[in-house]
Amino acid sequence: MDARTGLPVVGMIGAGQLARMTHQAAIALGQSLKILADSAEDGAALVASDVVVGDYRDLADLRSFARGCDAVTWDHEHVPNEHIRALTAEGVNVHPGADALRFAQDKGAMRARLAELGIASPRWTPVTDPETLKTFGDEVGWPLVLKATTGGYDGKGVWVVASPEQARDILTSGTDLLAEERVDLVRELAAVVARSPYGQAAAWPVVETVQKDGINTEVIAPAPGLPNPEAIQQLALTVAAELGVTGVLAVELFETADGRILVNELAMRPHNSAHWTIEGSNTSQFEQHVRAVLDYPLGTTTLTAPVVVSVNLLCPTVAPQASLHPDHDDVQPKALDERMHHTMARWPEVKIHLYGKAMRPGRKVGHLTVLGDDLATIRARANAAADYLMNGERDA
Amino acid sequence: MDARTGLPVVGMIGAGQLARMTHQAAIALGQSLKILADSAEDGAALVASDVVVGDYRDLADLRSFARGCDAVTWDHEHVPNEHIRALTAEGVNVHPGADALRFAQDKGAMRARLAELGIASPRWTPVTDPETLKTFGDEVGWPLVLKATTGGYDGKGVWVVASPEQARDILTSGTDLLAEERVDLVRELAAVVARSPYGQAAAWPVVETVQKDGINTEVIAPAPGLPNPEAIQQLALTVAAELGVTGVLAVELFETADGRILVNELAMRPHNSAHWTIEGSNTSQFEQHVRAVLDYPLGTTTLTAPVVVSVNLLCPTVAPQASLHPDHDDVQPKALDERMHHTMARWPEVKIHLYGKAMRPGRKVGHLTVLGDDLATIRARANAAADYLMNGERDA
Repeated sequence: MDARTGLPVVGMIGAGQLARMTHQAAIALGQSLKILADSAEDGAALVASDVVVGDYRDLADLRSFARGCDAVTWDHEHVPNEHIRALTAEGVNVHPGADALRFAQDKGAMRARLAELGIASPRWTPVTDPETLKTFGDEVGWPLVLKATTGGYDGKGVWVVASPEQARDILTSGTDLLAEERVDLVRELAAVVARSPYGQAAAWPVVETVQKDGINTEVIAPAPGLPNPEAIQQLALTVAAELGVTGVLAVELFETADGRILVNELAMRPHNSAHWTIEGSNTSQFEQHVRAVLDYPLGTTTLTAPVVVSVNLLCPTVAPQASLHPDHDDVQPKALDERMHHTMARWPEVKIHLYGKAMRPGRKVGHLTVLGDDLATIRARANAAADYLMNGERDA
Repeated sequence: MDARTGLPVVGMIGAGQLARMTHQAAIALGQSLKILADSAEDGAALVASDVVVGDYRDLADLRSFARGCDAVTWDHEHVPNEHIRALTAEGVNVHPGADALRFAQDKGAMRARLAELGIASPRWTPVTDPETLKTFGDEVGWPLVLKATTGGYDGKGVWVVASPEQARDILTSGTDLLAEERVDLVRELAAVVARSPYGQAAAWPVVETVQKDGINTEVIAPAPGLPNPEAIQQLALTVAAELGVTGVLAVELFETADGRILVNELAMRPHNSAHWTIEGSNTSQFEQHVRAVLDYPLGTTTLTAPVVVSVNLLCPTVAPQASLHPDHDDVQPKALDERMHHTMARWPEVKIHLYGKAMRPGRKVGHLTVLGDDLATIRARANAAADYLMNGERDA
């Protein structure tokens, strides 16, 4: 408890953009997020006052950080589950807890639990040897998807393999694996909800998450033309309740050609697919996460506009147009500031969010959000603004 | 320039709630506001990473703080004008500059300049001796208003006097004074605009600012039933341009019984009368101030709802209802956290903003904002929520 303000203290393990935006939202609630950072140059560490640099894999660091926190939460899923259990045993109030978080850390456990709940996933199997994989692949068809059971994220730890031969190196790497059928999907969706320890829950509209080369580039809220969005929100609320999730839960989904909805992944923290809620909802996912973690009542999730689009800001893998900075072959500081000017002048209604990161080829350094009435118009606007901000002028 | 992000560095002198909310907004633009605080416990110092504790009246402190800032701005008007001139002479890029800020620091200079521009003020005169005051008072009528020419704020440095005798102690106190007629006003308004060094300007709708005992308690956007709001926005834009204001300018106004609009005060910084823009406008006054100070193009000021009400959170001058904390005669930490729960449960759509301040009788510790379609409904809701959050239960 903060003696001066009389409000509880929230600690977050991890200092990336999710912690950065959680801190930003928490300020309004009278909070100053306490943050465990890998480095003082992490996105959230740059903007918060109460920052500890330490190792989230080290129980002693976690323990010392948790002292004085009324609640502890996570900006990523990589804290070892046994450490979370140890903290809980010592009386630390963590959200989500180890029992829930396990299903975001271990894809095998997640798939098995969803099956028990009657919630559809792609067909899957744990893979221990080449024979299991061959049998499974011959049943569901090649190519199929191999996934590291733990530790993967953002397309890392995922491989599409066309044959048992192609899988050989991955199988012998020592990584715990599961295999999944490669689903014939129409698009990807996400259902994001929040749940408090008290058991109150709230859902945002189901969104469409547009992917390019396995990376989410664009989020459209609400997902257009969805036959039964309420059922999908209910699915996510069921997962949150049955798994005992506290805080924000993102359920990443496939919509298949034959109209089925399959769970792809679970994330138990604020999620890229709900960044649009900062301007697009009465309560942002970041504020909602803080409320949930503190067991405060949740805020309303009403939309502030009929359609909202957010687009990720991804650094170009090649240099932006030469004329802006002819002497350099990578993105230059001066050029970004110049492009900020032009972007704001051309699109004064676009909301820009930068994460305080240095520019590196292919890196996600921010996102932007546009609200409006007509989806095609705001999608075009959001994509044009993001393209300009990251790449500068393009030839017509 | 921040070498890592390639973005310019903004410094703000003063670390109150305006700096706190400016920092919050600046994070989205990739910034981490650098702050000169009186104390490490100031509202903004609690939530920002780059905080220097120093004295804003000390040129050496200002000079050392300004080093490495690409632009410097103010959270209050109390930095001595000659220090701002000295910084400018040394090449520091300050916004607003000394020439503009003088008119927010010196009420005599402000009144004289507005008169030159043909902009109406209450009738006024500088007061040097009891005779001037008597002559002026007999002309405009008693009671009249005495104001400290410099240094006043939030109702401080303002006295209503009914006779020359009542003014005697104030006149002999050594304070530089001006006298103003006591205007027969219907209500108070505020026109808030922003202007960039480049000369671009943007206006939010004119708002009504409800006062209680000389303190602003409530802001209604847009001001209901205003015959010619565009003319008032234009007045504020004219003041901004003619005075060379850069950043946010708030023009506090009186609306008189006979329909005249008179300028009361000027503030050249984010202002209490535009806190509603955080949720109520596409661009908040805090983001806009950062954009203006950086000479970035300004954002659109479109409203996000037909009506927006914000209510200041003022600590009670007497203890909240005894049942919540029977053992104490002041506002207790535990009680505030409890009231947060109840407020959020009862009004899940209300946006709460706390400034990280300790509770003290009569102190402004935050504000809250409600958006909606029907003014009477949201006013009632905002006031009920604020009353509950500050005072707890009331007898029916």
